[in-house]
Amino acid sequence: MKIAILGGTGKEGSGLGFRWAAAGHEVIIGSRTAEKGEAAAEEMQAELPHATISGADNAAAAAAADLVVLSVPYEAQEKTLAGVYDEVQGKLLVTVVAPLGQPKARVWRLPSGLSAAEEAQQQLGEGVTVVAAFQNISAGHLRDLDYNLDCDVLICGEKAVDKEIVAALCRDAGMRGINAGALANAVVAEGLTAVLLGINIRHKITGAGIRITGLPAE
Amino acid sequence: MKIAILGGTGKEGSGLGFRWAAAGHEVIIGSRTAEKGEAAAEEMQAELPHATISGADNAAAAAAADLVVLSVPYEAQEKTLAGVYDEVQGKLLVTVVAPLGQPKARVWRLPSGLSAAEEAQQQLGEGVTVVAAFQNISAGHLRDLDYNLDCDVLICGEKAVDKEIVAALCRDAGMRGINAGALANAVVAEGLTAVLLGINIRHKITGAGIRITGLPAE
Repeated sequence: MKIAILGGTGKEGSGLGFRWAAAGHEVIIGSRTAEKGEAAAEEMQAELPHATISGADNAAAAAAADLVVLSVPYEAQEKTLAGVYDEVQGKLLVTVVAPLGQPKARVWRLPSGLSAAEEAQQQLGEGVTVVAAFQNISAGHLRDLDYNLDCDVLICGEKAVDKEIVAALCRDAGMRGINAGALANAVVAEGLTAVLLGINIRHKITGAGIRITGLPAE
Repeated sequence: MKIAILGGTGKEGSGLGFRWAAAGHEVIIGSRTAEKGEAAAEEMQAELPHATISGADNAAAAAAADLVVLSVPYEAQEKTLAGVYDEVQGKLLVTVVAPLGQPKARVWRLPSGLSAAEEAQQQLGEGVTVVAAFQNISAGHLRDLDYNLDCDVLICGEKAVDKEIVAALCRDAGMRGINAGALANAVVAEGLTAVLLGINIRHKITGAGIRITGLPAE
């Protein structure tokens, strides 16, 4: 698959892109400027000589991709999406955005009463399918391909078929994706990010995550 | 500790009470009528002959206890708390309530914009300390004392010292309690209940739960 990562120079976006590129996907690192995206892509390419990685500005990255991943701070979400509105029409947009207010360990309720994922869906309209995922993973070990990530990914979206595509991306990145219901449920995954951050702070760790228990073995 | 369980005849409340009684706590099963509470207590007492279990109506149960557990459907929360308002003043109230709308697998945002736990705190006032916990455990195996519960408990509340008390109750019931931050964060634990219910439905299981990963071993 041809995957564009908007905000792909950040730690989580580049970490996911790295794992997807290593798994054989074509990855386009999007950034506010083409130069920054290209620089990040070159640096990743050097580590993964057999992978196909390029860099571009966010709009060009989105235009070239089959699937678009949104990996920016919540504060940049609206502006980033406005800049790729036309380029993402007809595509699947996977958002990893989790709003963090102040203090960051306290769940931030957005003024809209919605999740950031639902706000993205409203902004982009019905021509785009938004799925929320990867809110609760810690970026620290993504670029160590041998590291066994001990966490599950909650996948929220309206259609099972789209969530299957994202579940495959979870597997390709070394994680288990779990259908967590409707896009409205993304408010839970987004809020969990703040809870896990608080757990990190209180325990002086960096990688708190979640596992869903009680499921039959795969 | 002397623990009253309001709505203690339900599956989760009676299951927690069973485990706490087995661990040596004095347990008072509260119900809308004293008769129902007494009947449930007698039935539990027969299984745990060395435990101290009694039944009462919710107000008498709350009056007699050091710590009060609220285990009723969300729809009954306001009325139940109104009936014990005086009896719980000065005490710790642990709420296990998780609002479930329709469909139950979809996160229900309360009209207040708050969590059920915060609504309880507002209703009871500053004289009562509300802590949210046990939202995400499955009740099915609580009364099997040999069953190893594979789940963690998120504990939300304002003061660490109160959350320590609840963490001890988690241990006494065979689970690990984790400080999940401020009472406002209860909205995540409550929402997770709907997510886990959806996972149960989709996988035809009954006991989906969560574990927090990345923590040092205890």
